[in-house]
Amino acid sequence: MVEPRVYEAMSQPIVGIFDPYFVAVTEDIRTGLRELFGTGNDFTFTVSGTGSAGMEASVANFVEPGMKMAVLANGFFCDRISEMARRHRAEVVRLEKSWGESFSDAEAQEFIQRERPHIVAFVQAETSTGVFTPGKSICDAAHKVDALVIADTVTSLGAMPVEVDRNGIDIAYSCSQKGLSAPPGLSPITVSPRAVERLRSRKTAVDAWYLDLQLMDEYFEASKKYHHTPSITLFYGLSESLRIIREEGAQNRWSRHRRAHERLVQGLKELGLEMLVPAGRRIWNLNIPVVPEGVSDASVRKHLIEHHGIEILGGFGPLAGKVFRIGLMGPLASEEGTDQFLSAFSEALAACGYRMPTLAR
Amino acid sequence: MVEPRVYEAMSQPIVGIFDPYFVAVTEDIRTGLRELFGTGNDFTFTVSGTGSAGMEASVANFVEPGMKMAVLANGFFCDRISEMARRHRAEVVRLEKSWGESFSDAEAQEFIQRERPHIVAFVQAETSTGVFTPGKSICDAAHKVDALVIADTVTSLGAMPVEVDRNGIDIAYSCSQKGLSAPPGLSPITVSPRAVERLRSRKTAVDAWYLDLQLMDEYFEASKKYHHTPSITLFYGLSESLRIIREEGAQNRWSRHRRAHERLVQGLKELGLEMLVPAGRRIWNLNIPVVPEGVSDASVRKHLIEHHGIEILGGFGPLAGKVFRIGLMGPLASEEGTDQFLSAFSEALAACGYRMPTLAR
Repeated sequence: MVEPRVYEAMSQPIVGIFDPYFVAVTEDIRTGLRELFGTGNDFTFTVSGTGSAGMEASVANFVEPGMKMAVLANGFFCDRISEMARRHRAEVVRLEKSWGESFSDAEAQEFIQRERPHIVAFVQAETSTGVFTPGKSICDAAHKVDALVIADTVTSLGAMPVEVDRNGIDIAYSCSQKGLSAPPGLSPITVSPRAVERLRSRKTAVDAWYLDLQLMDEYFEASKKYHHTPSITLFYGLSESLRIIREEGAQNRWSRHRRAHERLVQGLKELGLEMLVPAGRRIWNLNIPVVPEGVSDASVRKHLIEHHGIEILGGFGPLAGKVFRIGLMGPLASEEGTDQFLSAFSEALAACGYRMPTLAR
Repeated sequence: MVEPRVYEAMSQPIVGIFDPYFVAVTEDIRTGLRELFGTGNDFTFTVSGTGSAGMEASVANFVEPGMKMAVLANGFFCDRISEMARRHRAEVVRLEKSWGESFSDAEAQEFIQRERPHIVAFVQAETSTGVFTPGKSICDAAHKVDALVIADTVTSLGAMPVEVDRNGIDIAYSCSQKGLSAPPGLSPITVSPRAVERLRSRKTAVDAWYLDLQLMDEYFEASKKYHHTPSITLFYGLSESLRIIREEGAQNRWSRHRRAHERLVQGLKELGLEMLVPAGRRIWNLNIPVVPEGVSDASVRKHLIEHHGIEILGGFGPLAGKVFRIGLMGPLASEEGTDQFLSAFSEALAACGYRMPTLAR
């Protein structure tokens, strides 16, 4: 859900990309993003594309042909980043788990220690499974072998503390439409000083010109050198979203998402549903309960949208038909939003033949 | 200038990327783009990025490592596409001319015949110089040696007839913010059936995953397979812009731009200014007069924006300080728009010390 103020901001007249007003807008965005990423990185701005553009910018700029990239692979976006790394000619090694499972600190450390890669990639909030991985132990292990760490924070940024600096993440990217509640189309990215140093000492040019972070940096930094024409309208929207977040306070916003998540989990438990991921490993703004035995997830989702105007997603890949994926973020992450959803969901389950087990009652 | 209706369209609520309403919006856009490109190509949609993303998609998808790409190089964007091709590991050969000069049919043909490249690239409307090159003779020569042709139509689409099919262009890309008068952020692209065939028979994967046209096609075509999340808001804006163009009629819109251009050239001539590019080779919506002897282009531009609120651009690269670049497109390409500009420009020139030569008077 996008706030009305954000739609209003996007109807402001478009100005030139070197206009002092627009430059001020880009600076505001960078300041807001640093707070939400939890970083002091100068090198923080937006890539002109969606979350996958940020993912590919992270891969293309830090992989040189023949480098080894180690992926902690337990979901759809771990597979996507592996595929991108192969295309940019990395040697990809993977530690695999079933979708929905997490890596223990020891497993991650042992894998990184053994492989000694140039780059490690993990997904902090895996949209396909609901697993949250803060990343501190991964980053610690990676830095011991002098590897950089890329973290996918597409689903976490704005809804949960990402803590780039505290976790030791070198490169994190995200999107504008989930936790930030702006329209899709921009990909926030932040790069640590040690990763910037690595970037500046590359031996080969980045093959993806459009995603070349050093060229983008020359536009966003003082020299304002032309690279491409950013989408002024989307910057207006993101800037207003970040202003709304600043007014609430980042800590308050994160707490609100945690409370809505806990209320939802409790409600789902009372309905007799189990969560796919154990407590402590769950994303707050994307809740993934298991579809109860004998219930068709597609029928429930169809009923929800047709009778209540609420869209939730199903599982896909190995989780197809097995889970519901319930986004509860931005303005919707409230007591009322949660209760309204639970009431509709309970009705939809019943209409699709679900009978609560006696124990849960 | 973006029409108020386009801003209104962009404040429509965001829906999901598989929502039937959004699918209808994407189909409308594809139909509108085909008319303006002058093509029957099925493979016509938008890349989620600015014009340079469309440029790189064209290069990355049709270049395989070691292929030869021939560039007709007479301006800034010819250099940019050469740079991209090198990064995607093409062997780049160039026929060079000074900025502002055009290639004769014979020169282009002789170059292509001699080099026998896999791909030829040219810029139909070169923003840095004001030169327009329709491309028919280039395409004819390229097809004789079985090469594909990429055309940059960033500045021409929507303001001039691009005539993809009539000229024989295989791949054309553009942007949303110039001739189409929507906000920046999307890059329309069209691919001929013979180029699609070449794409399908690639031996290597496209290194730029985000710009992989076959993956995008799977989303835009019937299968609706997820690739990335397009910016719903920008699609609403582009769709409304194309509706406005349809209401006026493409032919009428092109004629209006031609008339405004002719009126402006006449007015500039009466002021004693010369155009950089000879008649018949000029872009209609981007007019490039030479800065008169003894006048500082920066002062004139500063005066124009401070006293009249009108922004025009200067030259850059080898044309720095030597030309003005005057965009006259979309709603502004009218008799009134032209006269208003000429009156302000004349005042600004005089204020900056320009005295009309006696002959021009």
